[in-house]
Amino acid sequence: MIYAAIMGFGTIGSGVYEVLYGNRDRIKAACGQEIEVKYVLDLRDFPGSPAEDKVVHDFSVIVSDPEVRLVVETMGGLNPAYPFVKACLEAGKHVATSNKALVAAHGSELLRIAREKNVNFQFEGSVGGGIPIIRTIYRCLAGETISEITGVLNGTTNYILTKMSKEGSAFDAALKEAQRLGYAEQDPTADVEGHDTCRKIAILTALVTGKEIHYEDIHTEGITGITAEDHLYADKLGMAIRLLGSSRIEGDRVYAWVAPVMAGRDNPLHSVSGVYNGILIRSNMLGTSMYYGSGAGKLQTASAVVADMIEEASNPDTNVLAGWSADPQPIEPIGDLRRRFFLRLSGQCARDAGDPGICAGTAREYLGDCRVVTADGLDGEYGLLTEPMSESRFAEASAALARAAEAEGNRLIQTLRVEE
Amino acid sequence: MIYAAIMGFGTIGSGVYEVLYGNRDRIKAACGQEIEVKYVLDLRDFPGSPAEDKVVHDFSVIVSDPEVRLVVETMGGLNPAYPFVKACLEAGKHVATSNKALVAAHGSELLRIAREKNVNFQFEGSVGGGIPIIRTIYRCLAGETISEITGVLNGTTNYILTKMSKEGSAFDAALKEAQRLGYAEQDPTADVEGHDTCRKIAILTALVTGKEIHYEDIHTEGITGITAEDHLYADKLGMAIRLLGSSRIEGDRVYAWVAPVMAGRDNPLHSVSGVYNGILIRSNMLGTSMYYGSGAGKLQTASAVVADMIEEASNPDTNVLAGWSADPQPIEPIGDLRRRFFLRLSGQCARDAGDPGICAGTAREYLGDCRVVTADGLDGEYGLLTEPMSESRFAEASAALARAAEAEGNRLIQTLRVEE
Repeated sequence: MIYAAIMGFGTIGSGVYEVLYGNRDRIKAACGQEIEVKYVLDLRDFPGSPAEDKVVHDFSVIVSDPEVRLVVETMGGLNPAYPFVKACLEAGKHVATSNKALVAAHGSELLRIAREKNVNFQFEGSVGGGIPIIRTIYRCLAGETISEITGVLNGTTNYILTKMSKEGSAFDAALKEAQRLGYAEQDPTADVEGHDTCRKIAILTALVTGKEIHYEDIHTEGITGITAEDHLYADKLGMAIRLLGSSRIEGDRVYAWVAPVMAGRDNPLHSVSGVYNGILIRSNMLGTSMYYGSGAGKLQTASAVVADMIEEASNPDTNVLAGWSADPQPIEPIGDLRRRFFLRLSGQCARDAGDPGICAGTAREYLGDCRVVTADGLDGEYGLLTEPMSESRFAEASAALARAAEAEGNRLIQTLRVEE
Repeated sequence: MIYAAIMGFGTIGSGVYEVLYGNRDRIKAACGQEIEVKYVLDLRDFPGSPAEDKVVHDFSVIVSDPEVRLVVETMGGLNPAYPFVKACLEAGKHVATSNKALVAAHGSELLRIAREKNVNFQFEGSVGGGIPIIRTIYRCLAGETISEITGVLNGTTNYILTKMSKEGSAFDAALKEAQRLGYAEQDPTADVEGHDTCRKIAILTALVTGKEIHYEDIHTEGITGITAEDHLYADKLGMAIRLLGSSRIEGDRVYAWVAPVMAGRDNPLHSVSGVYNGILIRSNMLGTSMYYGSGAGKLQTASAVVADMIEEASNPDTNVLAGWSADPQPIEPIGDLRRRFFLRLSGQCARDAGDPGICAGTAREYLGDCRVVTADGLDGEYGLLTEPMSESRFAEASAALARAAEAEGNRLIQTLRVEE
């Protein structure tokens, strides 16, 4: 028997309790002993809950009880999560958390304390709740040299984009529906602006490089500028618009970015739709592998936290995962990255002949060879798919093109990256 | 430093050597020590190879050297792989193998010896080379109760089916192309008749249930009866034909089967095409997750074997994975399983009106409500998609329908299972 405490008994914390007792036998078989929750820390009481008698309101009860070996942090936010987790690690207790803000902000320090105290600080639930990706990187791809991680890492935005694509909805309408269904929070900023995806790709990149990643260094764009019309073009091209977080590791050089892209049909992330997440990994021996599962639901995230607890209970006296050091990993500017781009321009092009009109001709002067794309029902505009070029070349060319189009009385409506 | 021996220096064995030395630093970091190959056992010599000086022809050199702690078995077949592996385990050495025939035939006994000797017998490379699925089940889903595993587990057949679908090729032509490209063996029986998939789903099912599975008990159909015409209908329905191995675990009752099915667009296995494999797992807390990667290529399989070696080197004195006991797990007859079915019948149906003709009317008498499906360019026949029904009801109804169609001068051309 090993004793645990759960700090924060909201959605995820109570889910952890449910998973621990719902899969009790299986968990006992997996770690060779029972995990028993001794305390639940919360400001509230939970009359009628099976955890009713375990509720405490005072953190010091947990940190000073030597019988408690495993602590779960599911409070969210940095305060008091950060000082509480730090104190638990310093007291020689293992910690499992689903709090990505905590990991992204203080991961390096908390990992160092865990190493010093020979315990574990684990956070499977902080990235892709329904996909056991951190353990996969450590346990399953341990011998691989990973060169790329790219993922649909946020279920909320993927739900919104999928709904826009399937039903032709506008962004605002799809967001409202996501909020109504509980997939999006009342303040959706962290999701729709890409901040959540940014923290997750920062954590994954730190795991792969073994160095600290400052998530502020990662170029991040959200999905608020995506329109129903963009989806019509994507559809026409057999592509799907996904918000991706990606990092590419080339020796010491690391590129990382978050942005909405058009993903082609041959890209395994193309088929990751709705509230699902998918994470693609390229490594030198295995090649391309992909991991797919639910975005962060209550029981999915709780299950990930419990997987951490099982590993900790199986290795009570060992620091099993190295995590990353406090060495900062610089992030390269994205200007060197090469890919195709998609643009929408107002104006006419001679559709039937496949021969672009005046503005398309102008566009080619700036962008080189392009494929003209038209979408049914969209008049007075057309799309262009470029050949692969660097981000910096495209930024320059598209800015010049926008000026030229304006001079013609037209306008550059949209630009999107393409991942084939 | 921990010493290893590789038995069998063919494609996979030399791949293991390549991965071990190619990712040397990463592997050392992962298991805290270097893995050094001391011997390579093969009947041949390998002049010019980096392993040239390590080649031995006598198994007793390996089994009697106490310095060798890890043994890799990549000979294939049962003889002498089985006696060699058994002797190594009995001598207290860890074994990692990619040999699914060995695991399916003697896994229970070899796992028992490993437990008795406190070493590990691991076989990640035997199932879905490019997908770390065994470790995922043990390490990442340890706390989950798994109710279903369904996978595209054989890259050869998936390549053939994808080629037929994309290019309209006949089975024989697609098989020849697969052989030319080295994706299929000269004797393709084990792949195309589903035997390979059957052994893999048997291994996965044994891992999940913890009991021995007799692969002979698993209902197994191959893909030799699939035609280019079947793919036309699948296409029309937005489905893809995949050879699936599947098991469903409902408490003590276990269902398992291998068969080609039409997979709908919402099924994550729909998009697993070409030589790729995909494995879908349903479990009680995580819900649906899917793991996707290359079918068994040289380096993919070798990397899986090396992942086993890393785990063994990290746990030299512990039996880490329980595997399964020698308790046999009965497999239920598949008659109770419910699903939709697809059929092709010769004859006419009134296409334009959406109103089925005489034979379709007859079909409905036997099968109940059906959707009529026609495929462009296929005259003199049509397809039917049934409502969900049990396998046994469908077997009975379709046999009766075949007789009735014959009485009308028509014929039941094909039947296929559907997985939505």
